[in-house]
Formats: sequence, structure tokens, C-alpha cells
Amino acid sequence: MAPPTPRLVVSVDLKKKPWEQALPLHNRWHPEIPPVADVKVSEVFRVEMVDWTGSVIKDDDSAADVKFIDLSTVHYLSGPIRVVDKNETPAMPGDLLAVEICNLGPLPGDEWGYTATFDRENGGGFLTDHFPCATKAIWYFEGIYAYSPHIPGVRFPGLTHPGIIGTAPSMELLNIWNEREREVEENGHKSLKLCEVLHSRPLANLPSTKGCHLGKIKKGTAEWEKIAKEAARTIPGRENGGNCDIKNLSRGSKIYLPVFVEGANLSTGDMHFSQGDGEVSFCGAIEMSGFLELKCEIIRGGMKEYLTPMGPTPLHVNPIFEIGPVEPRFSEWLVFEGISVDESGRQHFLDASVAYKRAVLNAIDYLSKFGYSKEQVYLLLSCCPCEGRISGIVDAPNAVATLAIPTAIFDQDIRPKAGKVPIGPRLVRKPDVLRCSYDGNLPTTKNPAASM
Amino acid sequence: MAPPTPRLVVSVDLKKKPWEQALPLHNRWHPEIPPVADVKVSEVFRVEMVDWTGSVIKDDDSAADVKFIDLSTVHYLSGPIRVVDKNETPAMPGDLLAVEICNLGPLPGDEWGYTATFDRENGGGFLTDHFPCATKAIWYFEGIYAYSPHIPGVRFPGLTHPGIIGTAPSMELLNIWNEREREVEENGHKSLKLCEVLHSRPLANLPSTKGCHLGKIKKGTAEWEKIAKEAARTIPGRENGGNCDIKNLSRGSKIYLPVFVEGANLSTGDMHFSQGDGEVSFCGAIEMSGFLELKCEIIRGGMKEYLTPMGPTPLHVNPIFEIGPVEPRFSEWLVFEGISVDESGRQHFLDASVAYKRAVLNAIDYLSKFGYSKEQVYLLLSCCPCEGRISGIVDAPNAVATLAIPTAIFDQDIRPKAGKVPIGPRLVRKPDVLRCSYDGNLPTTKNPAASM
Amino acid sequence: MAPPTPRLVVSVDLKKKPWEQALPLHNRWHPEIPPVADVKVSEVFRVEMVDWTGSVIKDDDSAADVKFIDLSTVHYLSGPIRVVDKNETPAMPGDLLAVEICNLGPLPGDEWGYTATFDRENGGGFLTDHFPCATKAIWYFEGIYAYSPHIPGVRFPGLTHPGIIGTAPSMELLNIWNEREREVEENGHKSLKLCEVLHSRPLANLPSTKGCHLGKIKKGTAEWEKIAKEAARTIPGRENGGNCDIKNLSRGSKIYLPVFVEGANLSTGDMHFSQGDGEVSFCGAIEMSGFLELKCEIIRGGMKEYLTPMGPTPLHVNPIFEIGPVEPRFSEWLVFEGISVDESGRQHFLDASVAYKRAVLNAIDYLSKFGYSKEQVYLLLSCCPCEGRISGIVDAPNAVATLAIPTAIFDQDIRPKAGKVPIGPRLVRKPDVLRCSYDGNLPTTKNPAASM
Amino acid sequence: MAPPTPRLVVSVDLKKKPWEQALPLHNRWHPEIPPVADVKVSEVFRVEMVDWTGSVIKDDDSAADVKFIDLSTVHYLSGPIRVVDKNETPAMPGDLLAVEICNLGPLPGDEWGYTATFDRENGGGFLTDHFPCATKAIWYFEGIYAYSPHIPGVRFPGLTHPGIIGTAPSMELLNIWNEREREVEENGHKSLKLCEVLHSRPLANLPSTKGCHLGKIKKGTAEWEKIAKEAARTIPGRENGGNCDIKNLSRGSKIYLPVFVEGANLSTGDMHFSQGDGEVSFCGAIEMSGFLELKCEIIRGGMKEYLTPMGPTPLHVNPIFEIGPVEPRFSEWLVFEGISVDESGRQHFLDASVAYKRAVLNAIDYLSKFGYSKEQVYLLLSCCPCEGRISGIVDAPNAVATLAIPTAIFDQDIRPKAGKVPIGPRLVRKPDVLRCSYDGNLPTTKNPAASM
Repeated sequence: MAPPTPRLVVSVDLKKKPWEQALPLHNRWHPEIPPVADVKVSEVFRVEMVDWTGSVIKDDDSAADVKFIDLSTVHYLSGPIRVVDKNETPAMPGDLLAVEICNLGPLPGDEWGYTATFDRENGGGFLTDHFPCATKAIWYFEGIYAYSPHIPGVRFPGLTHPGIIGTAPSMELLNIWNEREREVEENGHKSLKLCEVLHSRPLANLPSTKGCHLGKIKKGTAEWEKIAKEAARTIPGRENGGNCDIKNLSRGSKIYLPVFVEGANLSTGDMHFSQGDGEVSFCGAIEMSGFLELKCEIIRGGMKEYLTPMGPTPLHVNPIFEIGPVEPRFSEWLVFEGISVDESGRQHFLDASVAYKRAVLNAIDYLSKFGYSKEQVYLLLSCCPCEGRISGIVDAPNAVATLAIPTAIFDQDIRPKAGKVPIGPRLVRKPDVLRCSYDGNLPTTKNPAASM
Repeated sequence: MAPPTPRLVVSVDLKKKPWEQALPLHNRWHPEIPPVADVKVSEVFRVEMVDWTGSVIKDDDSAADVKFIDLSTVHYLSGPIRVVDKNETPAMPGDLLAVEICNLGPLPGDEWGYTATFDRENGGGFLTDHFPCATKAIWYFEGIYAYSPHIPGVRFPGLTHPGIIGTAPSMELLNIWNEREREVEENGHKSLKLCEVLHSRPLANLPSTKGCHLGKIKKGTAEWEKIAKEAARTIPGRENGGNCDIKNLSRGSKIYLPVFVEGANLSTGDMHFSQGDGEVSFCGAIEMSGFLELKCEIIRGGMKEYLTPMGPTPLHVNPIFEIGPVEPRFSEWLVFEGISVDESGRQHFLDASVAYKRAVLNAIDYLSKFGYSKEQVYLLLSCCPCEGRISGIVDAPNAVATLAIPTAIFDQDIRPKAGKVPIGPRLVRKPDVLRCSYDGNLPTTKNPAASM
Repeated sequence: MAPPTPRLVVSVDLKKKPWEQALPLHNRWHPEIPPVADVKVSEVFRVEMVDWTGSVIKDDDSAADVKFIDLSTVHYLSGPIRVVDKNETPAMPGDLLAVEICNLGPLPGDEWGYTATFDRENGGGFLTDHFPCATKAIWYFEGIYAYSPHIPGVRFPGLTHPGIIGTAPSMELLNIWNEREREVEENGHKSLKLCEVLHSRPLANLPSTKGCHLGKIKKGTAEWEKIAKEAARTIPGRENGGNCDIKNLSRGSKIYLPVFVEGANLSTGDMHFSQGDGEVSFCGAIEMSGFLELKCEIIRGGMKEYLTPMGPTPLHVNPIFEIGPVEPRFSEWLVFEGISVDESGRQHFLDASVAYKRAVLNAIDYLSKFGYSKEQVYLLLSCCPCEGRISGIVDAPNAVATLAIPTAIFDQDIRPKAGKVPIGPRLVRKPDVLRCSYDGNLPTTKNPAASM
Repeated sequence: MAPPTPRLVVSVDLKKKPWEQALPLHNRWHPEIPPVADVKVSEVFRVEMVDWTGSVIKDDDSAADVKFIDLSTVHYLSGPIRVVDKNETPAMPGDLLAVEICNLGPLPGDEWGYTATFDRENGGGFLTDHFPCATKAIWYFEGIYAYSPHIPGVRFPGLTHPGIIGTAPSMELLNIWNEREREVEENGHKSLKLCEVLHSRPLANLPSTKGCHLGKIKKGTAEWEKIAKEAARTIPGRENGGNCDIKNLSRGSKIYLPVFVEGANLSTGDMHFSQGDGEVSFCGAIEMSGFLELKCEIIRGGMKEYLTPMGPTPLHVNPIFEIGPVEPRFSEWLVFEGISVDESGRQHFLDASVAYKRAVLNAIDYLSKFGYSKEQVYLLLSCCPCEGRISGIVDAPNAVATLAIPTAIFDQDIRPKAGKVPIGPRLVRKPDVLRCSYDGNLPTTKNPAASM
């Protein structure tokens, strides 16, 4: 007889707030956030998720919601889910949790998403010194395809994936995170040179009681207060997986997560209809609500067997991922290159982040010649299936990074040709993506030579 | 009537030294290195190249040649080639030179290559603090496939490409290079934090008369002395293309190079039978001699039309690349992740280089569990068709980088499985890759927790 | 604002019989079967479908349901759906109806399917003279993957598609069908040589009132009697599309159907989770219930513009299909070949059907060496993503046909190797697929030399 | 030390006739044609081949050479090559010979090819009743790409492969061939219905002393007379492999050939730069001279172990093929369908050849709307990387065959669109492919409705 249909272990009601859900959501990592459901190995189960902001961003024609968003509340995650084996013995610290993505997609009845850039002083992004304004583009889905009324002339198949999937950290691991990130937040400007080139602020997102949601733990209790002060933000990817933003993690993929607490306490959220490598605009994928159908296995003792620590403790590990065989098939790619020389002409030493910034800036300026605004391209490169590669990391002093864009997503030929960029029948039917004003006072960066 | 067979415009004789060739090779970038040949747009022509070291590295069972190599002599390039249009008018500064790679391969009769890591104090590499010794692996080719007596158990199809292809810089551009790289070399240790994590030395490779070859310009002449003191080394990729190491630049690809001097003065070399993204071991592709069959077009005024400067002058541009439709087709990939926390546990700010270093270290330790030595895996990841991605570059403070390895290149199943790594029938028939002793005195890095 | 969620225009309730559905199903082609729903161009709409037998085949451990099935009732189709443009003007004869498949899948809660061979005297199949017994295998779905308790050792991603999609024929076209098929049924044995090699019976499926369902037309009425006697069976693909069984017609594909009646009257059904080219066992895909999300456009006058008749009337046309960019990616294929010499050793002239029969027989015998029963392989090749090609059709007297099987679907290495086929750890955990006895009296074919 | 460069075991000189070569070529299959070279298992060796006609077809602007060609002389093969193991023991009857294609390509200096259709009364082809005239198109190669001055507007990467590769038959197998093919030639018109639809003549190609070349056996000797009367023509693919025309048999592929005579006696020829499935125009690939680099292994007793006879004797087997991982990657395909109803409207029973004929005719007429002549399209579909599939072979009475064409090979968008086929900027720069007059008197077929 057929196995039962995937059991719905976490459902969400998009008409309710994240904290009003039957199984309340959480937006922090902490070992003491109690599980909301149990699953057994080998069973296929279904998890529903709100979009990362919990429906704050609307399907409308203004980026004001993006500009003024309260980022202390992201990302809303479904879970934690406790995983047990066939004998009801839970996953134990030191095990590996193998999570297979059997199926996924948007929530039925909510087939749309958005890509945005934050205001420079409220979130920022990879190129926030060039693009300080909040912007937004809405995307509509037609099955595997997405198109946007705000970025006409492109349509592409999504490689849908969860931006965040991870296990709960142990208290020991959580302390490591908080300590090292506090060091960056407090001393980074002095000690880290990249802060001068990548203007995203804050440097790290430390625990905050503001905006904190801890699932079943009631706000205002002493327990809540304690945990909220310790619990890690969900912004960065870390040893437990978390916000990995690996764009190819779609149907048929498998994630091998280290287990740090009894039951593994798996949480997931931040569904992306599609994302480009790097997710450069920060709110950069096509963000949406969605569902996952998952199947877990426990590899007993697998952390020691398969993961080698890369740091001072046995907890300094990273998950492993297996990418499945179903992806959109593109024939040709246009590739933009960057080297680790910044916009002021300054040379950096083998810095792939600087090189990638330059590659993305090159691609934006190039594509804007074909009739898009630069803001449109910035959003597009953040969410379309483009590939960001570290091509050369040894040829001192230049790292070489590349950004490869599938040419088929455009409804015009974007390759260089003899003669000028065609001017006539451009396919741009709207002057611009939605953009707010920037009222801050931080300096912005210009390509010094670009206007020459 | 058929067009003529590709015209051989630069031939090499592997029994002769680079400077003894009929058309002498060069290993520096300078506007005044005179062209050795002319080609017309639309004609398909053939260029032969020695391997990047000019046959210093031998097909034998010792890495001593790697350990003691004189790196002042690399990379030997064929060219410069002057490009003219149908009316014999040369390419002019401001044009774009479109170079199509029609065909390429090893030189007939020389179907082998090598991958190596340099001694920490003579070249180094991405992980030189972990792997300070010179090592070497020889690869033999069977058509599209490469296999190595020194890394048994793997065989893969090559995505063959030129590591270096570029146009000559103008004097103005050359001055920009020399100035910014000198700054790094002189002040980098003080001002650039990555130097503490990436131990490759020197920080930059400044012009040196030692080892310098300038093609047709006779050594010892005043002209030679002047140019040798100014001419840029070929190690890093720069605005003119050069050492881009883009592994997908194979048959059917096209490169759009900016033109800085009359005639464009195209040079190429450093053929790779195969390379992984990042080319992590530095001498990291499967290095070989080889040939290219190329076809050029000139896009008049194309620099201004298609390239936007990203720096203080109109010369701060980068080439664009178009990747062709023929690549090996892999079904499944195992993906290793790194975050920008270094081996000491220190947090870095959105640093993709640190994250990639951790991803590569994770992959090396993982694969070594299957019976390879770590040195074997380091070499393998440098030359097999693996993909290095910048997955997340906005989730402060962690950059997320990934290294994706096609599982099909191994003759064992390398995915994590329930139970232990199989011990029995490992496919390793040799204890180790060729390795020299490390006699230097620089400290090496250990993963602090790895031995626990 | 986002477009609405795909509108559900035909829903089915699997607990009800096909004729009890709110919008009753039909199983014949006829211009007078009235539409059950209207759709507009550009809107995305959803159609649900029962499996082709209307739930006659059960998820159990016996093939008796297959053996005794009443085939006069297949295939149950959803529709007809009338298509109108933005001005409510319907599609008109002579137009082309472009139908895009936005999304599709199994019906939620019914994630299983079956593959079967019919009894030789009740349905038969491509190899019915070799495999006269009814057999059945159940498949369970885990997201994109299918696996079967009856064919252990294989698992593969489905390329899900509708087996049947078509427009209603005009009366003139229907008459052409009935006439030409009656000729085959009545005189085929005398006039068609392939009948001696392909033993599928009957030669054609003529209109029958038995088992006939005509949607909204009430059984027993004079209208019903008239139409039932004229209406074409749904077994073969024809000028209107219909049972094309094109296995790649999955997400992102587009079908250009000729329009023969006002409104186009689109019907669809026979959902396949996966199918091999040829669908050799007849009930040969992984048959299931399912849904389609479709979007229509009308190309006015498109039949004349794009389709050239290939026969005595302007109605002798065929649809055109556009295959989308998302398919499972397989790296290596094992290919079996057949030539147009039959099992008795007799030479046929450029006969691709005979050649393909031999290729499939070769593949079955080969794979059965690895521990499967021949019945298991026959079912597997009917439903896994294998490719059936006409490789050579000009080299008289032999047509060459090939069957290419992706090696990755097996959990053992099925390539020929030095030495014998491994005997030890075969991965077959069940002795056989479900099989009924064959109680008929038609002769069966043996490979004369196979037992030597 | 590196293995030696592939040993050149058969070289050809294109300035000499096939029978003047140092190692004379042969154009028949017979066990007594003596080997011209020996190879050992595991060594990589190189074989050069003339084009299948031995340079009769010229790179010029007339199809007269095609029209009047003497087809009794094709195909010229290089070999036979005797294969021995490491102990010098030859391959023996009952073994399997595994032949890996390491590399292949055009002969340097001869980078062009041709596609042609024969005159109806001298060769014919799949659609010879529609296209009775001899036509020719020349193709030039630019690395992986081919383009034709006679079919402008298309350019595609070749999937280069040998059309013919096979082992020598035993006398017993040869007798089987001759007997069954003679039966077709003598009685086919009476007994085989396909002869009424596929007008290719003769029905079979029986042994002929005219045009016969037997390698080292001197013409005019008694031995030559005897063998020439018995030796099989090379036109059809058979049990020994031979003219399989499997278009994907490119670099990295492997062929498992049955061994019928001591030493295996491997022969190969008929190099194709590219071919479409079916090679419909007969002289239908891009025919060229070329080279193969091969590596052999012997699987002792492998015929019995891996091949099941499919006919009255243990010799009725077929080779197995393994397709490698490197093929051009196309994103989108346009698919034309045919059903087994012929141009007169007559229904055939599950006949894949008739269905494929209709699919190809549909594709030709469709593409001709975009500005090509029908002859151009017929030649194009014969040689471009299109796929011919048997989609449905069980839905009596209609077989469904499809022809899938990658849209990227055209420099215009060939998909159906709202409105008419664009008339303005068609990319056809020549009125027609080279075409001779047809002076024969056989009737030709028209699509009865096509002109309506």
C-alpha cells in the first residue's frame, strides 16, 4: 500500500501574524526554543513557511514598506522539528541529519514574490554605497517561470529553494557565535579592511530582544527574557547551516546537517523562488511564502565520521550539500569579470569580495546599456539564476571573480555586437523599478570614470 | 571553396627553449613588445604555446623541479599578435577585440600535464600555510579524459582552456598597474588584513629584469633594460584580461578584450587541460603545452559602447566573456561550504576569500577520509572541474562560499552514508602524491580542532 | 497586483466515479461533446484529472485488476474546455491554440502510480507475443522521485507530463479517422505486414457504445446514441494531438494545437509521472491522477500560417510542440540497438518498428542478467526516462533503432565489465513483479537462440 | 613517464585514391579480408579515414558529382585492425571488444564536409519520392562549429562521430546476411508493404564485384573473385555494428562489439562531423575525412555473458554502446510529430517509419516558411543535431514519432508566434541549395493538400 501523503507538520495561515500561527514561528537560533512537532526518519513530511518578513512586504506599487521595515524581526522560521528514528530515539549531538528535499514550491494561492534593496541605513546590501535607496520589484509566477511588471523584458525558470535550513545550536556553539560576532561589531571598523569597501551595516547582527519571537515560549516570561538576550540572529549562515542561500538546493537535493542538540531541532524558512549566487541586493532572491516536503535520515555518529572541525573546537564544522539532477538547462552564458581593485583604483590582496563587487558593478553597467535602469539590473542579478564564481584566488595580488548570466532569460540579444547597442525597439516598457528617496547622509560611491 | 586550414601563425618547438623559438616568446606585459605576427579579422588562425614554465617541469617522479623553480620566468606567452581588419587597418585603442576560440588542445605528441603546489617560500598557494611543501602530480590524457598515476581513483573529462589571454596595455595603464601593486607590496602587511589569512607571498609581483623575456627585443640592449624595468608580470589577471583562469573558456567561447594599443597585440599562453574554479594550488590547473585556433573580430569603438570604467580612469575596465554550449554534463554534485570564520575561530566581515578557504579545507579533509592523502585532494580540487561559488555575500558578518564537486569523477561513491566510511576496497593504489620536504621556517597552520 | 491563483476550472473527486463528477468526464473524441468550462487567453487555469482508467487499477498486490480491465472505458478525459480571447470571441477553426504547461503534478493526497502490461487477449502491448501475461508494478512518489516495491534497485526523477492533450475534431475530420481506421481493422491482416510482427490486438479501436462516456450528454438519449456510435476512441494520437505520449512535455513546454471547432474544445488526461519513449508496455507510463496548470493563447489563422497538410485534405496536419528547459540531467547512457531483422531472423525493409522491438528485447535480456526478471525490465523500460531513437532510416534494408537508458537510475553499475556479471550482492529484494497467469491460446514468441 | 602519443596505425593520404593508400582500404565485410595492423589492449592508437566516397564528392558549386556517383564503391573503411591482449593472444570469437573513442575530428588540412541527397534512381533516400533530385551543400568547420554557404542562417556545434565501426563477420554470419537480404531484394515488393511508402531503391544491396575493394587482397586474383562475390556491402548496420549512424557516439563513448573472427578485425570509416537522428537524406550527415583515437579492451567470453541472441542462431546479437558526458547543451527544442498515416491518407498499423516520414515532412514544410527552400531543410535535418524519437508505439493503429530540433541553431526565432511568419528581414542570402535536374521517370509524391 502507498505510504501516506506527506504529513503536514507545520502549517501557516497567511492571514495571521507569525506569532498568531497555530504553531508559532520563531526568528532566532537557540537550543531552548522548544520543538513544535516530531517527525520520524523516512517519513515524508510537509512544512509551510511564511516569507522571511512575515508578510510585511506587500504586492503593491511602492517600496515604502521596504524602506521602513523593522529588520529586528527577520527571518521567521517554521519549526523547530524534532527528529527521531524508527525506535523513537531522537537524533543526538554528534549525529548527522540528512534532509532530502522531495518537493517544494510557493504556497497555493500565494503565487508571487518580491526582490528588494534596503535603504542604506536600514539594512543596506552588497552595493549599498552605489545604490542607497530602497527599491522593490514584484514577481508573478506562471508555474516554473517568474516575470515582473517592474522589470519587463525578462522571464526565467526558478530554481526554487529554501534560503534557510538548519539545526539548533548547542549553548556552547551559541556562545562561540555571540563572542566572535560581538568582536566584529565592536572592533571591526578598526581591524577589518573590507568594511571600507563593503558598506553594509551593521557589521554583525547581535542578539536583540526587540523583534524577537521564540515560538512556544511566551513573551514577557523570565525564560523568554533570558533566551531572547542570548539567541542568535538568523542573518548569517553558520556552523548549523542556517542562512546558506545556496541557490541550487532544489528538488532532489540533500543536506547533511550536524546535530548539536537532542532531536536536532530542524528549522527552515526564507523560501526563494529563485536566487542568483551571492543574493547581492540582500533582500535579493525572489522572496516568497512556500512549502517544503522533506525526508530525514539520521547518520549516527556522522559528525565525527564525515565532518572535520575547522577551528578551535569540534563544533567548528559546516554542513555538506548534495545537489540533485533537475535544474534549468541554459545553453549560453555571458560572463562579467572583476578583479580585486576597488572603485577608487586601490589594489586589494586576493580579495574575492572586492573582485565580485567589481564583477557585479560591471554587469550592472553593461546591462543598463540595453535599456534597463541600473536599479532594475541590480535587482535582477540578485534573483535570476546567475552564477558567481571565484575563478582565480592565487594570482597575487588579484583575485578574479566572475558573474555568469544565462543569455536566454532576456527577450533581446544582450551580446556585444559590431556597431552600437541597438536603440530602436528596446523592450523596456516602464521607466523604472519602484524606488524610494534616500534621506540618509552617508556618502555614496561613484565609479570615478563612469561619467567620462 | 573551403576556407584554408587554420593558418599557423605562431609555432613552437618543444625541444627548444622559449627564447630560442623561431618567434621568440615573452613573459611580460608591455606596449612596446613588438608583434611577431599579423592576423586579419575573420580568418581562423592557429597559435601554439609552451606550458607556462617553458618545459621546466618534467614528466618524472620527483617534485624537486617544482620546489626549486625560478618563478621570475613565468608565464611564457605566444604573441603579441597584431590584428587588422579587411582593409589592413589595425585594431585601435578604444575598440573591442572579439576573440572566438574555435578549437584547442594539447600539442600533438605532448599529451600530458602536471598539477603542483609550490614550496611555501617559493610561490606558495591558496592553502600554503596548511601545505607548505612542494608537491606534484602528473596527468596523462586519453582524448577528453585525464588520469594520474599519482592520484589514482579519479578520471575526468577536461574542459580545456587558455589560462592567459590578453591584449597589450598602454603605457598609461601599465603605470596604473605598477603603482597600485607597488603600494600593496610595500604597505600591504600593514594595511591589508587578508595577508594574515592568505599566506601567499610575495603580496604582489613587481617588474623584474631577472627572468624577463621580451620576444623580439634583444636582451642587453638599452631598449630591453628600459622595458624590462617597466613591464608588468603576468601573474595576476588585470584590465587587459591576462591570467583570468576562467575554467569554462573552452571550445565555442568568445572573449571581448579591450584594445589599448594599435593592433591590439594579443598574447596567450598558460594552457590548461582542466582547472577547478580558483585554481587553488596556484600551479593548479593541469598545466600543459597546447594550441589554440582563434578567430578575431574588431568592434570599432566597442570599449566605450560596451565597457563602463570601474575606477578613476576610462582604462579601469574588464573584458567580457561568452561561454559556449559544449561542456561535460554532470548529474550530481557534492557541495562543501565555508563561512568567513578562519581556522583560529576569528570572525571576518563578509570575506569571500576566507569563506572559500574554509570550504576548500572542508572538502580536503572530507575527501581524505576516502583514502586519499590531503595533498592529493588539494591537487585534485585545483584541477578537476569543480565549481567555486560565492553563494551569499550580504548576510553580515558571514560570506558563504561553496565548492561543488561532481561525484562522477571518482570511482567510488563519496557521498555520506549511514555507518562509517567504507574501509575495505579503497581505490588508492599509491601512498601519496610526490612531495618534497619543507625546509623553510615560516609557521604553518593547523586546524586547531582537527586532531581532537 | 498579483494575478489570481490559477483558477480551478475542472476539479475531480477521486472518491467518485468518472461519470459522477461535478463536471462529468468523457472518453471519446467528438465535436458535439459540450464544453464543461470556459477559459480566457492569458489566464492560468487548473485542470484536475483522474488516472486514465478512472481508478480501476488499485494500489494493491495483484495484477488481476489489470488482467480483467474493461478497456472500452479508457481514457477518461477532463474537459472539453472552450477557449475565448479577451473579447470573448472563441477560438475558431483554422486557428492555432498555443497551450503552455505552467505547472503539473500528482493530485495532492494521491501520490502513487502504476505501470502494467495487459493480458495478450485484453489489450496486449508492444512485446505482447513475448510477454502475454498481465503484470503490474506500483510506484510511490517522493517529490520528484519514484520508486517501486515491485522493482527494487531503481529510483528516478520523473519527467511528468500529460499523455493526452487535444482539441475536438470536426465532423469532417472524425469521418476521416473512422474511415481509415476501419480499413485497417477490416483488412489489415491481409494488407499490413507489421501485423505479423507486432501482435497487439485489435488492429484499431473503432467507435463503440459500450463503455462510452460523453460528459454532459445523458446516456440513453437519442443524442447520446448518435454520438456514441460516431465518436472516436482516445487510444491513438491523431491530427488533433490526443494520445501523443511525448515524454518531455513537462513544465515550461508549449503545445500548438490546430483548432477544428469553435472554442477549440480542449481536453486532457492520462497523466504520467514518467514515461520512456514508446511507452512500450502500453499501460506503460507511471499512470496516475494529476493536475495541470495551463495558459492558452490563440494564434488567429495559425493553422494555415504554420501547419502544412500532409494528406488529401487541409485537415491532415499535426500539432507542434515546444520543449522547456527543465529536465533531469543524466551524465551517462547505455544504448541498445536493434536492426529490422525480426526474432525469426527475417529481414524487413527499413522498418523502424521492428528495429525498435529488437532494441527493446536486447535491453530486456541484458538488464535481466543483473538480477531483475524480464517482466520487471519490460515495465521499467516503459516508464523510466529512457530515449527511443530512430538512428538510421536510410541504409537499406536495415533501419537502426536505439534505446538509451540513463545508468544513474540503477543502484548498481550496469555497464559491461571484464569478467562475469557480478553474482553476489544483487540488489533484488523481491523475486518478481506482480504477474497473472496467461490463459489464452495465442502462440507466443521465443528468441530461438536465447536458450542455447 | 607519459604513455606515448597515440600510435598512428592507419594513415591516409588524401591525394591518393583509396586503393593506392599505403595500407589499402576496403569497402566490404568479409572474414578473409586480412588485417592491415595490430593493436594491443590499453594502447591508444590513431586511425585516419577518407570520407565514405573516397574523395569523389568535391568542395565545389555543383551537385553533379552526387548525381552520377558510383555507389558500388562505398563505404571506404580503414582496417581491419587485429586486436591482441597483453600476452599477444588475439581477441577470439565469443569475446566482446570494448572500443573507447578517446578523440576524433576532421583530418588536419581538410576541415570541410558535405551533405547531399542522391538522385532518386541512383541511391535515393528517406524522402526520395518527394525530393528526387540530387542536391548538395558544403559545410565549413570553425572548430566545433559548422556553417554552410549553401544553407545560410544556421550554425551549430558538431557532435562528431564515426558512422561505421564494426568487427569482421564470420563466414556463418555472412551467409545469414546474404540469405536474408537476398530474400528482401527478390521478394520484397510482393511481401513488404513499407516498400510502397519508402521509395528508396534498391531494397537491399547485395554483394557485387563491381566497385569492390578488399584491402590487401589483389584485384583479379582468384581469392579476390571468390571473396568479392561473397562479401557483404557496408550500407546497412548489422550484428557486427557497422553502419549504425548513432549520432551521439562522440568523444568519451564506448562501443561493445561482438567478436566473430580471431583478432576481431575492427574496421571503421564514414566519419560524420554531425548528423541528425535518422540521417534522413542518406548522404545525410556532414560527411568528411577524419581521424579516430581509440583504445580497446577485450572482455573474454563477453558475448555469451552480456549479449542475448535475438534470432535463430547465437550470432543474432547487436552491439551495446555507452554515450559519454560531453555533448552540446541546448536549452529549447521545437518538436514535430508524425503519425502512421501516409501522404495519401492511408492508415498504417503502428508503423514508426511511416510516422517518422510524416514528422520529417511536417518539419520541412514548417521550416521552409521561414525562408529556406525545402531542399535546404531536408539537408539540414539530415545533418544538424536533431533527435528522432519513437514516442508512442502501442496506441493502435498509430505509431507516434517525433523530430526535435534545437532552436538555437537558427539565427532567427523559428517558433510559432501570433500573427504571420515574419516576412521582412529573412536571413536567407542564397536562393537555393545546389540542385541537379531529375531526369528519371519514377513518379514523385505530393502532399495532396499542401497546395490548397
